Amino acid sequence: MIGSLNDLQKKVSVHSKKRVVLAEAQDVYALEAVCEAASLGLIEAVLVGESLKIKDLIESLNYDVSDYEIIDESDLSRAVEIAVRIIRQGQGEVLMKGSCSTATLLKGVLNKEWGLRQGDLLSHFALFETSNYHKLLGVSDVAINIAPGLDQKASILANAVGMLSKLGIEEPKIALIAAVETVSDQMQATTDAVKLMEMGMDQRFRTCLIKGPLALDTAISAKSAQHKGIQDPVAGDADFLLMPNIETGNVFYKTMTYLAQSRVASVVLGASAPVVLTSRSDSHDTKLNSILLGCLDQA
Amino acid sequence: MIGSLNDLQKKVSVHSKKRVVLAEAQDVYALEAVCEAASLGLIEAVLVGESLKIKDLIESLNYDVSDYEIIDESDLSRAVEIAVRIIRQGQGEVLMKGSCSTATLLKGVLNKEWGLRQGDLLSHFALFETSNYHKLLGVSDVAINIAPGLDQKASILANAVGMLSKLGIEEPKIALIAAVETVSDQMQATTDAVKLMEMGMDQRFRTCLIKGPLALDTAISAKSAQHKGIQDPVAGDADFLLMPNIETGNVFYKTMTYLAQSRVASVVLGASAPVVLTSRSDSHDTKLNSILLGCLDQA
Repeated sequence: MIGSLNDLQKKVSVHSKKRVVLAEAQDVYALEAVCEAASLGLIEAVLVGESLKIKDLIESLNYDVSDYEIIDESDLSRAVEIAVRIIRQGQGEVLMKGSCSTATLLKGVLNKEWGLRQGDLLSHFALFETSNYHKLLGVSDVAINIAPGLDQKASILANAVGMLSKLGIEEPKIALIAAVETVSDQMQATTDAVKLMEMGMDQRFRTCLIKGPLALDTAISAKSAQHKGIQDPVAGDADFLLMPNIETGNVFYKTMTYLAQSRVASVVLGASAPVVLTSRSDSHDTKLNSILLGCLDQA
Repeated sequence: MIGSLNDLQKKVSVHSKKRVVLAEAQDVYALEAVCEAASLGLIEAVLVGESLKIKDLIESLNYDVSDYEIIDESDLSRAVEIAVRIIRQGQGEVLMKGSCSTATLLKGVLNKEWGLRQGDLLSHFALFETSNYHKLLGVSDVAINIAPGLDQKASILANAVGMLSKLGIEEPKIALIAAVETVSDQMQATTDAVKLMEMGMDQRFRTCLIKGPLALDTAISAKSAQHKGIQDPVAGDADFLLMPNIETGNVFYKTMTYLAQSRVASVVLGASAPVVLTSRSDSHDTKLNSILLGCLDQA
């Protein structure tokens, strides 16, 4: 079982190396993380984009150009298509965003003719490590699904449970987050939580323990759960938080990274291959760990 | 200007002492904070509830019963009414919750005959201090308004601006929080932000700088704002965050207090007197500072 983000590297290294395909690879931030993972022997890299720029960047980062497979394509949307097709044809296992936009890349992933759709909803999965919680904490959705309805929440949950299983968490404890623990028709987060609990016996969720609605404090603090009289194996010990809407998830993600000095890795789930979206403002640590999280999803 | 929560005590002590009225005072958690504030000479306390129990609790906390004005009333709803009427009659300035529920107390505050309504919306205001941000950070609404519409958001903002002014922040920088900085019809947080910006010249807001939609990172991190190319005096330097819904606010509050080791004080605004709601799971520090924040609202 993965106990810290450093364990990602250990766990990846015991599996066969995955091929990470970087779309529009002429992006120094993404490239730096890909080159580091490759130089550590953790991945193989396929770089799709403007080869001259890519080679210049690799040299500026002091890596050896000859170590990388580079596919030259200067047209942006063609570069995305080539990267996606490489995965689809089984020549790569993890797709990663370079300098293209998230929207462009996900549009490629969802392309009906040559994309990576498999009928499931795409959702973002983030995995946090903080000194103020006793285990890793998974969270969805902070970036893709705006105001998920019940079916979408079920799909997000199924995606997350699959990833948690690959992290070695066999019976993950899932907290359905709301502002309160009581059910109210005025708060959809609470009524949806009740319905998701009822669906808990469903095939998709039968390997996890689900509890909700829970406010964040009762999900992660045993003391707070005790104060409020909540006795449940999930309370105070959650492995995963299902957030009710994108604002809640996004603010949680940014509070953790900017104000709680937390480490994080993240990946997009639900396609036939994991998609790594890192951004310029992500730390080096986050980018590297996100690549490794993607590799583990394919292990 | 208040630069840290410790400054609340300094600022309160230079004003005339406020009378804090504790409704259903037989609550050891609230009483402990009230007795400490009184013993420090920062407030006068009026304790309404079961006098025998209240006296026992005061003695168990090692304070002197003779220092407190105690009004005996064992009936719960009568005790709330008496406490509220004391404020309404000008015999007290800050209302505080004892062992009664939040709902019971706020119902009393909103009573049309003897309550403290003044036409404004009630809203919760929290003030955070964290080593990971360079100034105090105010936030609404984490506890009362579930899914505020545009008018409610404007009222919440007006309440907050009034409080920030009393804290000595003359031209507060207000960030209207969403998941992104771009406006989309699919995200009400972003379209409401645009409308609130347009209302920025309104009488109620003219003393502040408003910017939105902003994701949390661009509101509080100058580096993140720079990465995203956002140039605005509010970006990276917000004094106050308007949260789009109760889940987002509540999760932020709890992430800050449970996972970011932040200090916090909070008060309910919008009635003719501030209302202090502390709960059993709040720290001693939070309870004391919340009482002082209420006193400053009346300074």
